Amino acid sequence: MSDYVEGKTRWWGWGDLDQRFDVENRENIMPFLRENLGMPLDTERFTDPDLEEVGLPEPRLSGKTLEELREICGPENVSTGKFQRVSHSMGKSYRDLLRYRQRLIRRPVDVVVWPREEVEIVEILRLAERENLAVIPFGGGSSVTGGVEPMGEKEGYISLDMARMNRVLRVDATSHTALIQAGALGPEIEEQLNAHGFTLGHFPESFDHSSLGGWLATRASGRQSTGYGDIEDMVLALRMVTPRGVVDTRRVPSSAAGPSILQLCVGSEGYMGVITEALMRIRPLPEVLDYRGLIFRNFAAGVSAIREMMQQGLVPTCVRLSDRTETALAQAFRSTKGPRWKRKAEDAALRFLARRGYSFDDGAFMVLGLEGSADEVDYLRPLILRICRQLGGFHLGTGPGRQWYRSRHETAYFREQLINWGVMVDTLETATTWDNLLHLYGEVRSAIRSALSEWGDKNLVACHVSHAYREGASLYYTFFAPMAAEGREEEQWEKVKRAASEAIMEHGGTISHHHGVGYEHAPWMNREVGEVSIRALQAVKMAVDPADIMNPGKLLPRG
Amino acid sequence: MSDYVEGKTRWWGWGDLDQRFDVENRENIMPFLRENLGMPLDTERFTDPDLEEVGLPEPRLSGKTLEELREICGPENVSTGKFQRVSHSMGKSYRDLLRYRQRLIRRPVDVVVWPREEVEIVEILRLAERENLAVIPFGGGSSVTGGVEPMGEKEGYISLDMARMNRVLRVDATSHTALIQAGALGPEIEEQLNAHGFTLGHFPESFDHSSLGGWLATRASGRQSTGYGDIEDMVLALRMVTPRGVVDTRRVPSSAAGPSILQLCVGSEGYMGVITEALMRIRPLPEVLDYRGLIFRNFAAGVSAIREMMQQGLVPTCVRLSDRTETALAQAFRSTKGPRWKRKAEDAALRFLARRGYSFDDGAFMVLGLEGSADEVDYLRPLILRICRQLGGFHLGTGPGRQWYRSRHETAYFREQLINWGVMVDTLETATTWDNLLHLYGEVRSAIRSALSEWGDKNLVACHVSHAYREGASLYYTFFAPMAAEGREEEQWEKVKRAASEAIMEHGGTISHHHGVGYEHAPWMNREVGEVSIRALQAVKMAVDPADIMNPGKLLPRG
Repeated sequence: MSDYVEGKTRWWGWGDLDQRFDVENRENIMPFLRENLGMPLDTERFTDPDLEEVGLPEPRLSGKTLEELREICGPENVSTGKFQRVSHSMGKSYRDLLRYRQRLIRRPVDVVVWPREEVEIVEILRLAERENLAVIPFGGGSSVTGGVEPMGEKEGYISLDMARMNRVLRVDATSHTALIQAGALGPEIEEQLNAHGFTLGHFPESFDHSSLGGWLATRASGRQSTGYGDIEDMVLALRMVTPRGVVDTRRVPSSAAGPSILQLCVGSEGYMGVITEALMRIRPLPEVLDYRGLIFRNFAAGVSAIREMMQQGLVPTCVRLSDRTETALAQAFRSTKGPRWKRKAEDAALRFLARRGYSFDDGAFMVLGLEGSADEVDYLRPLILRICRQLGGFHLGTGPGRQWYRSRHETAYFREQLINWGVMVDTLETATTWDNLLHLYGEVRSAIRSALSEWGDKNLVACHVSHAYREGASLYYTFFAPMAAEGREEEQWEKVKRAASEAIMEHGGTISHHHGVGYEHAPWMNREVGEVSIRALQAVKMAVDPADIMNPGKLLPRG
Repeated sequence: MSDYVEGKTRWWGWGDLDQRFDVENRENIMPFLRENLGMPLDTERFTDPDLEEVGLPEPRLSGKTLEELREICGPENVSTGKFQRVSHSMGKSYRDLLRYRQRLIRRPVDVVVWPREEVEIVEILRLAERENLAVIPFGGGSSVTGGVEPMGEKEGYISLDMARMNRVLRVDATSHTALIQAGALGPEIEEQLNAHGFTLGHFPESFDHSSLGGWLATRASGRQSTGYGDIEDMVLALRMVTPRGVVDTRRVPSSAAGPSILQLCVGSEGYMGVITEALMRIRPLPEVLDYRGLIFRNFAAGVSAIREMMQQGLVPTCVRLSDRTETALAQAFRSTKGPRWKRKAEDAALRFLARRGYSFDDGAFMVLGLEGSADEVDYLRPLILRICRQLGGFHLGTGPGRQWYRSRHETAYFREQLINWGVMVDTLETATTWDNLLHLYGEVRSAIRSALSEWGDKNLVACHVSHAYREGASLYYTFFAPMAAEGREEEQWEKVKRAASEAIMEHGGTISHHHGVGYEHAPWMNREVGEVSIRALQAVKMAVDPADIMNPGKLLPRG
């Protein structure tokens, strides 16, 4: 029926039910968190919800409207079932996960539809406009900004799930492009491209549970974006169905024919239309995946190393640098599985490093990934490692790099457990230029810590630099704290979020580097792009969607 | 007073009066053109115009309006003088140069103003809206699409020359960015950046006579764009004054905060506002400039070589491949200055090449430029040359590369002479993906030749590939033919232009890769971006410029 399958999908949280975070083989993580959060972490504040416990009003759509939807998409592609409606009514933000556990669906969608082709989307939009219904495009549902949740005052809400439109329509091995339907999820795209010897190179943390359309609509970045580019760099052209017709941008590598309509659609978050397919740049599958770890004595030295490699044109595919707290956290997350001699060897290595002034309690851990032809990687590796060495970086070899690579999609599952234990855990991110990076890093960190301190003196605020450019990089924060008292959880989170967002705006960051806007970031858009730009975007919205049926309430600040 | 100085600037054509094309030391060019165009090229159909010969109506602005402009900008920065008005009323397209020679200014601007700072521009726009005057932003005046010419039915036309706002305001050596005022011309930008050890890396043919604001407004590309990127890739943020306020995009390397306002302003051609400054990516001055020539047995082999190097990630700074006709033309353009033994040696070299199956009459000449650190260039050169060799390319060494580099801004001056001799000469360009490149090449070439054949059987249609991407490249055509009979010159040109544009649209190109839209390409915008996109752009226009004072009649198709 859909990517979301009852009994398989963890509708109240991340991913599939058969996947969970392997805490048993990470002996250090629980003691580390207990100490730093001052919590026993042994009792469940929340339990995983059962669908039957969730209250949900009847769908507000008339029988006639539902019948029309069934005629358009086929009866098997329209659902008012509880599982589909509940799972499509929110995304995966901390707030969403909290509300699911509180068995609380404040704004449910009324129906979920799975169009099979573009023409069905055109008809759904026509019907929606006639009946004053909202249409919310839905890819993988992994939004952490409220992007798929009903907002506003429409007569009803249609979740338009793109899961049926998941094919790679054409691979052009001459031009290194692929025409891909917007509903294709990460693994579906890679599987189809890999068969032709290609990759898209877009691997966000949400890779398994997010779609091309979602990536484009939110200007996403994959973890290998430093080498492969952000999604907005990977797209050559796209089609987007609006209530006033189809936008179809020219399929050329570059054009000077006026303002970029393409880049107006990228980032439009379903607010102007439904992206249906895109012509994407693809790359030959890399011969080599070379992931390594390094440790720096401090964050600033590691930041300088990233800046140097980027500005010398020695661009890695992936580079991430953790600050002191995240380095300690990553060390605590380390797998302790395996024979006793292995752990003894690791301990010896740590003592060796300590004698040289490197510590995982007070250092900065870097993951460095090179992907490409053997020649390319062989050329880049020594030059990049030399820069790191010159800035005091100690090369730890491929072990820590491979470990990061293997487990890079796992930690998202740990959040489920932490929330159940009563831990507030969330992430937020921004970007700035190198000259401002350490300043912004400190200011946002202070703002988060200061906001958290109102609720207790124990917390963790970790950060890493990633998604590097010649001119700057993104900063990605994860924070953990004991949840506020029952009923005040959202208030606690909102205060932290607001403080961080204020600091980002005040100190020259962007409100989001790759999570997007949704409704969580919409209040900051005025300061982000200014009033004239807001008016311009509103004008585009009115031109293509005068009845405001497309994902209302998102992207732009309200009135 | 301005970059345009009476007695110094060739207002009816290209560049400065003290510069002209050195035809004397190119002995082969005139015989080549005589033979191919079937013209004696010895009599002047047009003479360079004298300002006194040009009829020009009095400025239509009231004394009060002029007085207000003087108050805003200072009296020395407002001119209704004939030289300034005439020189600011058209750009440098073939049609413009023809009309200047016909002493014909169909749509003159009424006044030229040179604001000194952004706030003056805000005031000028306010005045213009109140008085129903049009404002046409003017950078270097090198538009070949009619971008600076008055259009529509306003009460008067203000040419807003940005020449006073020509400073690099800040160089950030840490982030490799520079904040640059939009009126700065190419040499002004490079001079100021070079002093800090940096370059912008944007070197269009119009480099000496075009501005940052003009480049951004038209989505320009420099000749080294393959390595440094197109202007839209170089800009991090900009400010644009619209009649409804200032757009000021966030100064960050990347953002997911909604649709790209930045890329909506880039390419806006003065139709929505005046770009006043931009934060640009800059690069360290290259240690090495390594320019070489190669000859391929045919165009297709050279195209494959460019595609291979790009897709293997071996990206040159500059790569250009001439087709058979352009190769022959370039050979004819070769300087014949210097001692007799040198030319004898060259002839011997040609015979040597001919024995190996390479000919400049029937081959494809490639310029390959590598700029960067010595390490980088040493790494790339052998790998790129190997690809070329494998595809049959013969390496001619640095001589032909250097010669191209030295003379690359000279040929624009030859056009002046050719037009005076009665030669229609113009260029047009497009881009497409590799899978379509040779097909589009052939179709556009046929369309131009077929349109030209209506006016006689002698002509030259030359083309090169340049501005390469992993996914495709641009095609740049130059065509020469004897001008039609007096009074029919524009009709002749329009027919060729229309035929080429039709072929571009029909066969998957873009109406412009880097010249922009102006009014010449506006009729094709419907097919380029589609009706929905046109409506979206019109809506933005109405939101930021409801009185349509900004460069009216450009960019979008009329009615």
